[in-house]
Amino acid sequence: MKEEIDYTDKMATTNAVANTGDIQPDWNTILRAHERILPRIHRTQVLTSQSINALAGAELYFKCENLQKTGSFKIRGATNAIFSLPDEEARRGVVTHSSGNHAAAVACAAGWRGISAWIVMPKNAPKVKCRAVESYGGKITFCEPNVSSRSETAARIQAETGAVMIHPYDDDRIIAGQSTAAKELMEEVPDLDAVLAPVSGGGLLSGTCLGAKGTRADVRVFGCEPERADDAYRSLKAGSLQALETSDTIADGLRATLAPRTFAILWQRVDGILLVSEEEIVATMKLVWERMKIVIEPSSAVALAPLLRKGEIERLGRGTGTTPRVGVIFSGGNVELSW
Amino acid sequence: MKEEIDYTDKMATTNAVANTGDIQPDWNTILRAHERILPRIHRTQVLTSQSINALAGAELYFKCENLQKTGSFKIRGATNAIFSLPDEEARRGVVTHSSGNHAAAVACAAGWRGISAWIVMPKNAPKVKCRAVESYGGKITFCEPNVSSRSETAARIQAETGAVMIHPYDDDRIIAGQSTAAKELMEEVPDLDAVLAPVSGGGLLSGTCLGAKGTRADVRVFGCEPERADDAYRSLKAGSLQALETSDTIADGLRATLAPRTFAILWQRVDGILLVSEEEIVATMKLVWERMKIVIEPSSAVALAPLLRKGEIERLGRGTGTTPRVGVIFSGGNVELSW
Repeated sequence: MKEEIDYTDKMATTNAVANTGDIQPDWNTILRAHERILPRIHRTQVLTSQSINALAGAELYFKCENLQKTGSFKIRGATNAIFSLPDEEARRGVVTHSSGNHAAAVACAAGWRGISAWIVMPKNAPKVKCRAVESYGGKITFCEPNVSSRSETAARIQAETGAVMIHPYDDDRIIAGQSTAAKELMEEVPDLDAVLAPVSGGGLLSGTCLGAKGTRADVRVFGCEPERADDAYRSLKAGSLQALETSDTIADGLRATLAPRTFAILWQRVDGILLVSEEEIVATMKLVWERMKIVIEPSSAVALAPLLRKGEIERLGRGTGTTPRVGVIFSGGNVELSW
Repeated sequence: MKEEIDYTDKMATTNAVANTGDIQPDWNTILRAHERILPRIHRTQVLTSQSINALAGAELYFKCENLQKTGSFKIRGATNAIFSLPDEEARRGVVTHSSGNHAAAVACAAGWRGISAWIVMPKNAPKVKCRAVESYGGKITFCEPNVSSRSETAARIQAETGAVMIHPYDDDRIIAGQSTAAKELMEEVPDLDAVLAPVSGGGLLSGTCLGAKGTRADVRVFGCEPERADDAYRSLKAGSLQALETSDTIADGLRATLAPRTFAILWQRVDGILLVSEEEIVATMKLVWERMKIVIEPSSAVALAPLLRKGEIERLGRGTGTTPRVGVIFSGGNVELSW
């Protein structure tokens, strides 16, 4: 987090993280990841909305990963990781723990490769999420709803099967895959001033930094995070990983915390973290459904919400007097509909 | 309706409509309409869904007019009509009666041209529809919720202001505008076997016949209609315009009846009308929201619903043994969301 922005407290720069050397994954890795996944995923639409532009005072370009296969960007990283595996590893299958979009993505990509996917899910996971995993052919193993049970269960499956662990974000193959969403966005709208993405474990946001700045070095990248799950904001401010006491946000995709790998990338590359309230998340989600006629999940709304605050866009811009051009990554559209 | 299909009763062909001569609007008119409106409207996305393809047993291509400006295809016809007016007519403004998507479209297109739009709406029209018209600068005049009050009010405004009447569908300029959605779809997916669109007053469906068959003469075009508002089905079966006794369908955009002009085009060009139940409409709308992550209104769901019935796709196809490729026009996405 090299560039301070005036609405965050001064960032601690002493005793910060050690120099991590060259950032990984590098650009060639990202190019190969993109080639690997493009035949299998959607190159998703970039939509615009004049009425939301008018509200934000900016030209906004929405990268619609809610329209992506499996309903979220997670299929990018999962596909890259699973199709990177050598045959002798792949044939043992893959394992992961997730109750959300990563679980469905791993099950789907494993199905494409024709290998087994074991998914560890808490036994109180929503039925709709379990059905999604099963519909892609994933094999669910339920665990107690806590971190230790989850880890033990995944470790036991690994020991029994030899399956390869596909971590949701603490993995270069995953980060390289997620970076392709911002890369595609920058290819379609090359002159963006900034790109905003939600942040949870940091796979999407660190990938966004690499994909966007790898395409054009001077584009700014901001992470957006719920106030109620603000570990990335605090970690980057402190210069070291900070724990999350609670994470009772409506943005159910954003309850994880940064890993050392994603923290290191963000420390070097991200331009700031913007916090949003629960009320802003709900109002923004409603606005997008109504005005854009697309279904986004709360996590997606987090990346637009800051731009609807009075004055925020001027702070993000470059002060050149021209209308700012900002990309927003809508991360997913998996929300349980009530009818 | 030249080609009979085996799941409709035998169509009366005696004492049918008189030969209407050359179909209007002709292809040159449609080309000019498309040039006229393209700078102002979205060339909307064509989306696909593998899971819905699997359910239908076909390759489906969804033309997403729900993502169109004002949230429906109606802006195509309204823009063409309003930008076709000579200056001396346009400066007197336009008038229409509608409580739905046509009202918002006329208000929006009139705003783009910088002229007045008087919109006659029943006094019990939903508040959300009134707000949409007002947000585009339309001037609402309320009337009693019946046909005679609506006509009298519109006539009075015409007499007082000299405004030009923009009928929702009984107008060649409107039909030419609506035809451009199917024209774009056929340009993007040239080898479609068939195109399905909802039918109400027939502006979209007659335009779809002209736009699709004008691009490739042997594509088949089917209209889709709620059982509870089945005047197009009965009119084309009888060979003359039939009245609608009731129209209490959830598809609020499909409660109007054919006009002589749209009937004449459909009689010559449409390949069949498919009826759907209220239950099918609701289930299809839900399916699209969940699987495709887009918001469609019930009228849009009407055009997909028949394809989800067992065996329907085989009857629509050409029996060549290949997977049928079918275009579906999603007409709009304006639905009041309950939160």
